[in-house]
Amino acid sequence: MSLGEFDLIQRFFAAQGRERPDVLLGVGDDAALLRPPVGMDLAVTQDTLVESVHFLAGTDPARLGHKSLAVNLSDLAAMGADPAWFTLALTLPGSDPDWLRRFSAGLGQLAVAEGVRLVGGDTTRGPLAISITALGWVPAGQALRRDGARIGDQIAVTGTLGDAGLALTCLLGGVAPPDDQLERLERPWPRIAAGQALRGLASAAIDISDGLAADLGHILERSSLGASVRLAALPCSPPVAVRVGSSGDWSLPLASGDDYELCFTLPPGHLAEAKSRLAGLACPLTVIGEIEATPGLRLLEPDGRAYRPTRAGYNHFAAHD
Amino acid sequence: MSLGEFDLIQRFFAAQGRERPDVLLGVGDDAALLRPPVGMDLAVTQDTLVESVHFLAGTDPARLGHKSLAVNLSDLAAMGADPAWFTLALTLPGSDPDWLRRFSAGLGQLAVAEGVRLVGGDTTRGPLAISITALGWVPAGQALRRDGARIGDQIAVTGTLGDAGLALTCLLGGVAPPDDQLERLERPWPRIAAGQALRGLASAAIDISDGLAADLGHILERSSLGASVRLAALPCSPPVAVRVGSSGDWSLPLASGDDYELCFTLPPGHLAEAKSRLAGLACPLTVIGEIEATPGLRLLEPDGRAYRPTRAGYNHFAAHD
Repeated sequence: MSLGEFDLIQRFFAAQGRERPDVLLGVGDDAALLRPPVGMDLAVTQDTLVESVHFLAGTDPARLGHKSLAVNLSDLAAMGADPAWFTLALTLPGSDPDWLRRFSAGLGQLAVAEGVRLVGGDTTRGPLAISITALGWVPAGQALRRDGARIGDQIAVTGTLGDAGLALTCLLGGVAPPDDQLERLERPWPRIAAGQALRGLASAAIDISDGLAADLGHILERSSLGASVRLAALPCSPPVAVRVGSSGDWSLPLASGDDYELCFTLPPGHLAEAKSRLAGLACPLTVIGEIEATPGLRLLEPDGRAYRPTRAGYNHFAAHD
Repeated sequence: MSLGEFDLIQRFFAAQGRERPDVLLGVGDDAALLRPPVGMDLAVTQDTLVESVHFLAGTDPARLGHKSLAVNLSDLAAMGADPAWFTLALTLPGSDPDWLRRFSAGLGQLAVAEGVRLVGGDTTRGPLAISITALGWVPAGQALRRDGARIGDQIAVTGTLGDAGLALTCLLGGVAPPDDQLERLERPWPRIAAGQALRGLASAAIDISDGLAADLGHILERSSLGASVRLAALPCSPPVAVRVGSSGDWSLPLASGDDYELCFTLPPGHLAEAKSRLAGLACPLTVIGEIEATPGLRLLEPDGRAYRPTRAGYNHFAAHD
């Protein structure tokens, strides 16, 4: 069957996601037309997933659809933004209606769940890759940036770290990963509500996509500060804790990537309120360290010694060099 | 040399394009933060260029940078929008600082010329592909859509058609293309000023990226109408006119793609004003046909007979099937 580009998009993606009154014109014109809300700043992010770089060949297309959108919504979550719309550039080796149906179903379920609407994009032939641009809104001046950390702020994270990394380690080793960890790798849920709840409380925030050490490092760099993190405080699920305990290697929670949790800094006076708000969302919050004046990230073993990580974070280029 | 993703982006793209006061936060956070102007609708488009599909391997990176942005700005031009910002997802087989420098120089020159600013995106390893999302503004309710054509409207195009197609035909045949035609293929200039000048005059508009027949077809489909186009009226440069004249094959101006001119419809009463405004921009306007009630696109040979095209337009999937 030969489906044209236009037909492919129309069939699978024309009405993807939740209907929104602020979409004046969606898929099917030269550009989407969207009506901004008053008094809000626009947050825009674009992330690409490439086969064999960001996901393994043969990944379930429904899960891939979910994850492609989730990683972008996670960036909006880290700004404290309310996601609204997204565009999708899909590069496919061929037209496979079954693959498209499943991909769009996975994508669409997350889009509906989070109230966002697909408004445009394109479909092209080429090596499998998905590039999504997500747009959202945040009340003017209230976005959570990376550059706002201050000396004495508490460093906290949502959820648990290293689960996706454990699943990937299992898959690459030919071992079946635990179900919960595979779910974290293939169907991450962006911390959108948590990000919004942290507006007015957190001084800085980032989503953990490349590993805690690397991403917290971005906050430190942009804020021109340093930090100490207590490894024993890192929130780990039981399977990750077992790995760390048996090996003494903290790279899973520190540097394995794909967590899609939030890492944020809180002035001490905001900690109780942040805990309360996130508890109301059933979102775990764990304090893992403090912001300090001395540049650099200091990782402290349970006995207080300095820990020397083997990797600073997953880096798509350096990992191959 | 091993450059991390973050370093690559920072070095080549952090300050790409024209500085704008409406960019609160550009490259370097989880998302860009942008301040929308009051009373405007947001236009958003995303287009991807894949090596060996949209451009030949070995294309000059500076020209590729220009074209990657130009094709997206062309979509905004077709809406009558004022381009403001863009994000860039760059997928590269490896880190090649020289390639990146040249690519970003070509991209940046067009960005500065058109007053747009790079505000985010990502860089990943993989087969060469460029996906850009461009954002712009149009006064509320004044966008040029595809669905507004009315019976009796004149159909017009800017510039000349088929030049890029002629250049590509030459390159694929191992013949050096004429300079002007190669320039049209590799460094198209989006018709931004023309699009804006047509606000309030044109009833529908589209940019010609897949060939006139296919793109006018989208206006007809969205407007639920038909049209007649007089082939002898199609604006062709001398080299294209020679090809058409010697072969009797109109596929270059009708269906070869990559023109990045505007095709638009005008109520007859607006024609004189449109001509005047575009003349003021030194932008040629040529009337090529009329919108009609009967569905379908009728192509009329100079002697009045119906012309049967061999291709309906370049289609990235169908072309390989």
